[in-house]
Amino acid sequence: MNGCNEFDATIAATRIRRGELTSEALVAACLARIDAEEREVGAWQFLAREQALAQAREADLHEARGALHGVPIAVKDVFDTFDMPTTLGSPIYTNRQPCWDAACVAAVRAAGAIVLGKTVTTEFASYHPGKTRNPHDRSRTPGGSSSGSAAAVADFMAPLAFGTQTAASVTRPAAFCGVIGYKATFGELSLSGVRPLAQSLDTLGMFARSVADAALLRAVLLGEDPSPLPALATPPRLGLCRTPSWPLAEPAMREALEAAVRELRRAGATIDEIELPEAFALVNDAQQTVMTYEPARNYVFEMTQRPDGLSASFRAICEAGTRIDRATYLDARRRIAEAGRRLPDAMRDCDALITPATRGEAPPIEGGTGDPVMSRMWTALGTPTLALPVPRTAGALPMAVQLVANRHTDPRLLAVGEWVAGALRRTV
Amino acid sequence: MNGCNEFDATIAATRIRRGELTSEALVAACLARIDAEEREVGAWQFLAREQALAQAREADLHEARGALHGVPIAVKDVFDTFDMPTTLGSPIYTNRQPCWDAACVAAVRAAGAIVLGKTVTTEFASYHPGKTRNPHDRSRTPGGSSSGSAAAVADFMAPLAFGTQTAASVTRPAAFCGVIGYKATFGELSLSGVRPLAQSLDTLGMFARSVADAALLRAVLLGEDPSPLPALATPPRLGLCRTPSWPLAEPAMREALEAAVRELRRAGATIDEIELPEAFALVNDAQQTVMTYEPARNYVFEMTQRPDGLSASFRAICEAGTRIDRATYLDARRRIAEAGRRLPDAMRDCDALITPATRGEAPPIEGGTGDPVMSRMWTALGTPTLALPVPRTAGALPMAVQLVANRHTDPRLLAVGEWVAGALRRTV
Repeated sequence: MNGCNEFDATIAATRIRRGELTSEALVAACLARIDAEEREVGAWQFLAREQALAQAREADLHEARGALHGVPIAVKDVFDTFDMPTTLGSPIYTNRQPCWDAACVAAVRAAGAIVLGKTVTTEFASYHPGKTRNPHDRSRTPGGSSSGSAAAVADFMAPLAFGTQTAASVTRPAAFCGVIGYKATFGELSLSGVRPLAQSLDTLGMFARSVADAALLRAVLLGEDPSPLPALATPPRLGLCRTPSWPLAEPAMREALEAAVRELRRAGATIDEIELPEAFALVNDAQQTVMTYEPARNYVFEMTQRPDGLSASFRAICEAGTRIDRATYLDARRRIAEAGRRLPDAMRDCDALITPATRGEAPPIEGGTGDPVMSRMWTALGTPTLALPVPRTAGALPMAVQLVANRHTDPRLLAVGEWVAGALRRTV
Repeated sequence: MNGCNEFDATIAATRIRRGELTSEALVAACLARIDAEEREVGAWQFLAREQALAQAREADLHEARGALHGVPIAVKDVFDTFDMPTTLGSPIYTNRQPCWDAACVAAVRAAGAIVLGKTVTTEFASYHPGKTRNPHDRSRTPGGSSSGSAAAVADFMAPLAFGTQTAASVTRPAAFCGVIGYKATFGELSLSGVRPLAQSLDTLGMFARSVADAALLRAVLLGEDPSPLPALATPPRLGLCRTPSWPLAEPAMREALEAAVRELRRAGATIDEIELPEAFALVNDAQQTVMTYEPARNYVFEMTQRPDGLSASFRAICEAGTRIDRATYLDARRRIAEAGRRLPDAMRDCDALITPATRGEAPPIEGGTGDPVMSRMWTALGTPTLALPVPRTAGALPMAVQLVANRHTDPRLLAVGEWVAGALRRTV
């Protein structure tokens, strides 16, 4: 039998509510796992060990006051926390102590969750990596920028974790670490208490072990009553979308996607090939333009008053962004908007697109956090996305497919994702 | 002769650069004005008197290093400053000390500006007023939420000030205080270092004594080389737009707008009547829905962990927002987007719309900061706006017209605004 630290949040919350599990036992199991693995994995920037245990004991004294009563959660170190430092992965802010919680942190706490600590992020949720290693192979990157959050959930240190995505910062680490990664529709979930990297792109995301958990956490953030994911009346219609970046997909990913499609068809899904119109070919470049122009105008304080605390690569991005003129930037945003307007038609009557989550397996850690190319477009378009691990073949590292849907259709995407995850699980 | 504290920033910067004025003299003149008036006006939350003087003396020792070298500026107390407290107008955060500058603050400092202090804001840039009074009549509101910023510029305490707008928080105080208020196109100017009130609406704005100053400050924020506003080759074509809120305009405002139109026609402008399509009638309500739903999901920490520090009115907004469901919210955003798509056609070939900035003069201070109704729509649509004071008739308080243009056409709007301001000035 698995330890309770391997439960998903839905099961853990249910058992705690029923008195079959104590929050203290769950938090202690997570801490024991962290004690065993953290030296190698390096998922944590800050661990609130004693506070979390005390809060768990306190939770065990009371009736459940919310949907996450007694459930531990990991928080990427870009989300402000009033009781823990928040460094944004930058040595400039090693000692930074906010006086409020980011909105999502406050919301899960109000629902009874216990913040275990802060997880490692790349510098300002950009590219310069932190100390985290892939729990499945310590010579590989966990992906970024939400490196510690993905690793913590994958390594059974916490059942849930928050992340943010500006290019691929949720999808890619979820895929590399073999957990579920959900990025919400742009603008729907509050980023209050998170310093912007690129305001036109930054989006809240989360890591979980089940699609049900992502739906639960989303409901908590929106202040909605959590309800079980609705079962689909009929198998979904999916659009197999290789995207203009298909030539960059490695053979292992191509095979994994094709295998997933075969399995989903076998389970009853209708899967059409979807070719995106020409306009979409320009979106990746446009995303990079926006993600260079905007940070340069957001990190002015650091560039002008704390430049020595910045990595060379972050400085280079900001310097490049300064050289992009407004006309070029607006043109990039126009191209993104133009493709966005065409997406509903391009998807025809598909419930979701199915597309690679990454180019392939997690690359060696020396090379950074991996290529964000398979997610840039979807982040720019503001669509909800769901990274779903595919069954692992012998000796292989985790990989994932990515489901993509139209903006503001997150509830339907999660229901479809639950069906897809179930169908893929049955093939293992 | 006016004191140098009455110069606009463009003139002050030019004189400092030429050695005709010292930054120390300018800062000292602003401080002297503050000493004389602050007790009555209450524009400042925090004044950095000695630091500003020291920085001015330092600036006078060096060649100009930027377009605002030695020029003082006032900063609404919602923008983080690494060297001054930032309270957001809330007693919860009386002692809050950020460790960075908001991006716009860092940008003006890098351009040589001297931050005089932080100006009074309503609570979280929402409705609950601070201590500021209208400098033209202390029994009247200065407008809000950027109350102190507008009052400081109007009362010659500083030539420039930053504000933010979610409903009418720049346009209304600019109009009530008789200064120029420029709200940028949504999303173009960084709000990094500002806690969101409603992320789909919050926009950077500024207060100045000339349109040229607004253009100068905007260029500094974008990292562009400041250049003089281009003179129009021919007088502009404007669209007189009474908006669906026209019945709420007071007689004084109706007369002021009609008089301005007459004067602008006399000066050569072509002015067409523009009737907005039906879709626009729904935007004000939709803006209120968004501005209630989003704060409720941004201020979760304060609502759940610091409720006693909130005003009753802010708590009421958040409670109301919690009761708005997502479908209603998304419908509001759809209505706004739908009207936004129609605006370019509705404007026909006009350079800008001319419309009321407020319902009328500043109301008595007991009633709050005034009705935001004349600006809600434009904030929701994300258009750039420019509040331009109209000539005052004997015994009247300041009023303003509002110019509105299509999104991302800010440079053209500022050039048109300069022409309009010049034409109105000549009628005094």
